[in-house]
Amino acid sequence: MVFELTILGSSSAMPTSQRYPSAHVLNAHERFFLIDCGEGTQIQIRKYNIKYGRIHHIFITHLHGDHVFGLYGMLSSMNLSGRESPLSIYAPAGFQNILISHLSDFDIHLNYEIDFVPLMGKDPSGIYEDKNISVVSFPLKHRVPTFGFLFREKERERNIIKEAISKYSIPVSEIHKIKKGSDFQTPDGKHIPNGEITIDPPEPRSFAYCSDTMYFKRLSSFVRNVDLLYHEATFASDNKELAKKTGHSTAEQAAITARDAGAGKLIIGHFSARYKDVSCLLEEARKIFPDTVAAEEGSVITV
Amino acid sequence: MVFELTILGSSSAMPTSQRYPSAHVLNAHERFFLIDCGEGTQIQIRKYNIKYGRIHHIFITHLHGDHVFGLYGMLSSMNLSGRESPLSIYAPAGFQNILISHLSDFDIHLNYEIDFVPLMGKDPSGIYEDKNISVVSFPLKHRVPTFGFLFREKERERNIIKEAISKYSIPVSEIHKIKKGSDFQTPDGKHIPNGEITIDPPEPRSFAYCSDTMYFKRLSSFVRNVDLLYHEATFASDNKELAKKTGHSTAEQAAITARDAGAGKLIIGHFSARYKDVSCLLEEARKIFPDTVAAEEGSVITV
Repeated sequence: MVFELTILGSSSAMPTSQRYPSAHVLNAHERFFLIDCGEGTQIQIRKYNIKYGRIHHIFITHLHGDHVFGLYGMLSSMNLSGRESPLSIYAPAGFQNILISHLSDFDIHLNYEIDFVPLMGKDPSGIYEDKNISVVSFPLKHRVPTFGFLFREKERERNIIKEAISKYSIPVSEIHKIKKGSDFQTPDGKHIPNGEITIDPPEPRSFAYCSDTMYFKRLSSFVRNVDLLYHEATFASDNKELAKKTGHSTAEQAAITARDAGAGKLIIGHFSARYKDVSCLLEEARKIFPDTVAAEEGSVITV
Repeated sequence: MVFELTILGSSSAMPTSQRYPSAHVLNAHERFFLIDCGEGTQIQIRKYNIKYGRIHHIFITHLHGDHVFGLYGMLSSMNLSGRESPLSIYAPAGFQNILISHLSDFDIHLNYEIDFVPLMGKDPSGIYEDKNISVVSFPLKHRVPTFGFLFREKERERNIIKEAISKYSIPVSEIHKIKKGSDFQTPDGKHIPNGEITIDPPEPRSFAYCSDTMYFKRLSSFVRNVDLLYHEATFASDNKELAKKTGHSTAEQAAITARDAGAGKLIIGHFSARYKDVSCLLEEARKIFPDTVAAEEGSVITV
């Protein structure tokens, strides 16, 4: 099953001619989750051939413009495209009123429902679940209330070995139990251990998104053993003080969190416009966490 | 002196992968006037190498998102770039409060002043003037209060013929009066008519911007004899009823207004996303008004 992230925007607050503000689409089992929605997101979505009619869930980390200002235009365009299916928006508490008054100020009358899920609290909290995926939000440390998101595949059932079905004449009625891990009793009383007739399902995969945040030790525990970690790296280490002051991280700090979490792979993004070339950030991170890539518009990373 | 328009966005409400929402920069004598500010304007401005630090005046026609949603991000980026010089925003009355509460909602603290000029009324009204240019706003007919803008060069002084200065020994103290049209009296009492020592200055040029609007007859009188007319052409004539219902114009109607106004040249823009190829709109307009061009991102039209 598909589990992949498309980068739509890799800049920090100031976009450049090449980099757009934060926006990412996670395709998890053909469900599309939009994570942050900076200015130009709807244009990027079209550019990279993502159907925004298929987006039913939008996650907003915090109420800074470079993570939100693409939302109004997108909600409006969804409306003009004839959308009728509801849309869930997960955003810091308080956003609902801001959005409602904004839609009214700009004469936008949506023909679809918006279901607001307010983010709050100081501990990880489950905010979404379907048969394949669960999403947990957790607090980050920034200048305003900010949340990260952990997307995790659910444990899948065991795979029955095809040959075993005919070999032991396993009836359809038993399949469900065996997939859950039960052993099988043949009609003549022979005991077949589950391990002989099934193989392990693929390991559940996970993706975590951390932007914007300054470094803090507890963050690595929120994203323990994640397969793919997106972590902001607004600055290089020579701007460590500025990073702290503005509530951001250096590339090195992103890598430290990835290492301490035992992550599988790290993507850094949310680059300050001062870095025309982000290879210095990439090098800095790779010294601590070698399996690091730099976010780039249009790139697709499979978990 | 420069007097030219750069197209930053030519789409209507729904952008496409090629066309951005409305935004235009008029360079009038090296003063940069931004007209409408749809989503992505700050990205387009960078792409086409316009320094947004040089923009001191922003004109917003009406409070629909595709003409405004790029403004918040741009104001914020101007701030991050260290802007200190004041910015004037000409927008329909009521926008000031909307913007102030929006900046507060998103934790944006500007280090420069914004001078709001509210647009209102049913007649043309002077809203800006400097030594070279004047700007008049006039009402359009749309679903919400909407205004067009007429930028006009001022009459320039007459040009003194260099040779005449030495031939008649014209003293510096007389130059100013002669440029204003006075004749010259030589020290020995000889009368030299102004026409003999000066030539006509270039004709003042003008540009008018009309978006969004349905067709109405009086509009052509607001933009009488304009050299360059931008007029929206959201639809082709087969959608004339839809145009009227949504407060928009067809390409034919844009051309009728240009023809009736005695305009020099017409640019059509604000195209519905349904037209992958806008040549049908261009053809329709050219049947009525041959000197028509279609707006395209990055194109520069000299007045």
